[in-house]
Amino acid sequence: MPDNTLDWNGLKLDGSTAVLGIIGDPIAQVKAPLPLTQRLQRRGLNAVLVPLHVRADDVAPLLQSLHAVRNLAGIVVTVPHKQQVAALPIELMRAAREARAVNVLRRHGQGWQGELLDGAGFLAGLVRNGFEVRGRSVGLAGAGGAGNAIAFALAAAGAASIDIRDADDAKRADLVARLRASGCNAGAWDGESPRDLLVNATPAGMRADDPLPIAPSAIRAGQAVADVIMEPPTTALLALAESMGARIVHGRHMMNEQLEAMADFFAEVLR
Amino acid sequence: MPDNTLDWNGLKLDGSTAVLGIIGDPIAQVKAPLPLTQRLQRRGLNAVLVPLHVRADDVAPLLQSLHAVRNLAGIVVTVPHKQQVAALPIELMRAAREARAVNVLRRHGQGWQGELLDGAGFLAGLVRNGFEVRGRSVGLAGAGGAGNAIAFALAAAGAASIDIRDADDAKRADLVARLRASGCNAGAWDGESPRDLLVNATPAGMRADDPLPIAPSAIRAGQAVADVIMEPPTTALLALAESMGARIVHGRHMMNEQLEAMADFFAEVLR
Repeated sequence: MPDNTLDWNGLKLDGSTAVLGIIGDPIAQVKAPLPLTQRLQRRGLNAVLVPLHVRADDVAPLLQSLHAVRNLAGIVVTVPHKQQVAALPIELMRAAREARAVNVLRRHGQGWQGELLDGAGFLAGLVRNGFEVRGRSVGLAGAGGAGNAIAFALAAAGAASIDIRDADDAKRADLVARLRASGCNAGAWDGESPRDLLVNATPAGMRADDPLPIAPSAIRAGQAVADVIMEPPTTALLALAESMGARIVHGRHMMNEQLEAMADFFAEVLR
Repeated sequence: MPDNTLDWNGLKLDGSTAVLGIIGDPIAQVKAPLPLTQRLQRRGLNAVLVPLHVRADDVAPLLQSLHAVRNLAGIVVTVPHKQQVAALPIELMRAAREARAVNVLRRHGQGWQGELLDGAGFLAGLVRNGFEVRGRSVGLAGAGGAGNAIAFALAAAGAASIDIRDADDAKRADLVARLRASGCNAGAWDGESPRDLLVNATPAGMRADDPLPIAPSAIRAGQAVADVIMEPPTTALLALAESMGARIVHGRHMMNEQLEAMADFFAEVLR
């Protein structure tokens, strides 16, 4: 076949390429390798992100031995390893410490430095859509990994209050207690009463027959409603909110902003 | 910047991409990542080769732990790790066993299967240039890694005799003895008397002021003269041989054929 069947214009992939890996189990569903590689190479950085399919039992020893690969600059951590990595003896930056989860690691001396960019990505998506967090009340559905990251990012951005709903009472109470310990005005939420900003951080909405994660009674015209779900792009919650005159923020905004935040994070250890 | 500044037409790089690594120290000089990735993806295989900079002390533990990366399908081994990897408890295929060196590993049950394709690549370069090895006499300069690989490949292809020159007598004697043990008619060579095929497998010729690895007296019109050196593309030896009417085979032929052989080797463990 002729060479021009694959004209990978400007793609850097040679002996000087720095490698980033994304670890998860399963891994086939991850989307980040090509868009993060493009973002880095557009900045003039010779780096590539590749998927690494790693089971939970193998994560800790593998992270240790991957440090011996001297051009392996960093690692993206995805489901289900985010909490496990945060519990390892690794230097954690603020968001990772607060939410007890890690989604990015970069080479740092003899070990790794971990941070959680989920919340920062979410927040940047809000800001880019013109929403001001400071002084606003928040109703958050979901106290899992995404909910934790978003809650602490909203608290750091000056939200007046964050009220939380989760089917698991213990998870909800734990997140509320930790938010309060960090000085945030947090409490329980019924998912039905209005707030300035409503956020779905549960998986409800991925399938057509899922129940709404937030009741229609909570939604008002002029409010902001955000959903972390990326597929479908517009969930039933967002469609309803839009029809009721609310401003909506899609999951893909969070992802796009997070890819930018990842590029920033890794750029500091790439030449 | 607009998306079309990098139109990586058809590049597969996603969660289903199988990863291959090339280990060496240093690593910045390796050329294989892009051309091997292109060869694999042209075959419809979703795979990428990335450089992994690994020091000698780290090779053995890293190979063991990389097995836990379930989509890491194989590893290319380059200088200075080829001999060390062949000495590990790994299943070796014939050429690797004979030459006691490994340049490719692929996932195989609970471990790795190793082979040495340097000799096969060299041989394919000769064949593609119309040279028949069977029944011919060979004069080989260099009993190092490349020399070992080429000698056993020529023996397997039916060379009538293989005579070897090396500045290190012990290395030369060791290779001659192992070739004889495998049933090949091998001996010492002075580097000055003619043979049907002359091969340079030493580094002499990379720099302009290197001495010729083979004396002009050994070269005759109609003979074949091959050089493993890739840079410069035409060494002083090849330039001289061509001016004397010999047929010449460049180092890049060996490399191109070896990339094809690597693609064949890895294709068996890629879907």
